[in-house]
Amino acid sequence: MKVEIWSDITCPWCYVAQARFEKALAAFPHRGAVEVEHKSYELEPGRAKGDVEPIIKVLMKGKGWTEAQALANERNLTAQSAGEGLPYVAGRDHGSTFHIHRLLHFAKARGKQHELVKALYRANFGEEGSLFADDERLVALAAEVGLDADAARKVLAAPDAYADDVRADEREGAQLGVAGVPFFVFDRQYGVSGAQSTEAFTRALTQAWGDRSPLQAVEGADDAHVCGPDGCPVPH
Amino acid sequence: MKVEIWSDITCPWCYVAQARFEKALAAFPHRGAVEVEHKSYELEPGRAKGDVEPIIKVLMKGKGWTEAQALANERNLTAQSAGEGLPYVAGRDHGSTFHIHRLLHFAKARGKQHELVKALYRANFGEEGSLFADDERLVALAAEVGLDADAARKVLAAPDAYADDVRADEREGAQLGVAGVPFFVFDRQYGVSGAQSTEAFTRALTQAWGDRSPLQAVEGADDAHVCGPDGCPVPH
Repeated sequence: MKVEIWSDITCPWCYVAQARFEKALAAFPHRGAVEVEHKSYELEPGRAKGDVEPIIKVLMKGKGWTEAQALANERNLTAQSAGEGLPYVAGRDHGSTFHIHRLLHFAKARGKQHELVKALYRANFGEEGSLFADDERLVALAAEVGLDADAARKVLAAPDAYADDVRADEREGAQLGVAGVPFFVFDRQYGVSGAQSTEAFTRALTQAWGDRSPLQAVEGADDAHVCGPDGCPVPH
Repeated sequence: MKVEIWSDITCPWCYVAQARFEKALAAFPHRGAVEVEHKSYELEPGRAKGDVEPIIKVLMKGKGWTEAQALANERNLTAQSAGEGLPYVAGRDHGSTFHIHRLLHFAKARGKQHELVKALYRANFGEEGSLFADDERLVALAAEVGLDADAARKVLAAPDAYADDVRADEREGAQLGVAGVPFFVFDRQYGVSGAQSTEAFTRALTQAWGDRSPLQAVEGADDAHVCGPDGCPVPH
């Protein structure tokens, strides 16, 4: 069974939902047969890479809030995260995530995507310091999960590296109806939108597992040629 | 819509089927919305990398054929391939493909998987010279499709590079019931086994396209928190 998760590293509800999904998965009897893949989604696709602002300012501008209201919002997120045992430092930098998604595709190609997602969430929401000030913080996190620092640095410095993969994920998400994140897709059959409860994720896993169906054969020649362990039979 | 193709580069029917599938896809009205992914399958997972033999010898040993019978078999494949406009040089080397599948995963990570699959088929079946003599032929093919030659060489020299990806594809195939190749999977819903006709592939594309269904929502809170273009609403 395959679970695909569309998310953005600047999305606090993705951070919370990821923890809830992992709780559900850890208790799922068939967890060994569940493959998880992270897909790119940008909350702010229009923002340029160098355009970094404190989230408090972004909230004040975007929502027309006072500084006190924006801070209250952040403290609320601290409380929600604490409910899942997650650290959340109120106030953080906000910026474009396109290069971070590119880095996540590089990590995926090296089997470290999940580890890097977790490290990025923790660094962005749970630790002091900006994820957006320069690329070196990202390089350090990549190295921390076992990726080659130089290779990661090169990926970040090359704007086209893995850019097509990010765009392909975004296109695929749009086709599936992903209009906000987090969005969890189970075997391309079931969708779970938002930071649902651990119980809802358990329900989704159970339902999708129960509904796994064998592939249907498309009408064709029964004796179409196949190569297998015994070789490649050839018509006489 | 997604089409996944399990195949092995030493499988002549995969070579033929790939051409037929591509013909069907080229004429498919929704081809722009079809994503194609190549998946690893080894015809001979037990063969060691250095263990290279002429296919004629492999056929004589495996099938108990005379040399004349083995050659006739190869000539038959030449005729079948010609039917699809594909060159097929009778007689070729046969060897382990694990490292080739690793290279294909490296190519996939760089957006060149499809190009490399085609180059490998052409080199293995349509050209003189062995794909298995040393890694340099593979490096040259990788470079030909735009991959970095040094990086490709490093991948081939590191037995663990992308090895997990190959094994994951093989596990996934086994779970889906892939017991021989080529095997085409449409949206994880329909399966097409063997070198079917172009018409059968058209039927599969049409059927799978018509059956695309929106994701079903799993029961959960309707107001679960989502981050979207308007930010991340927070409960008050």
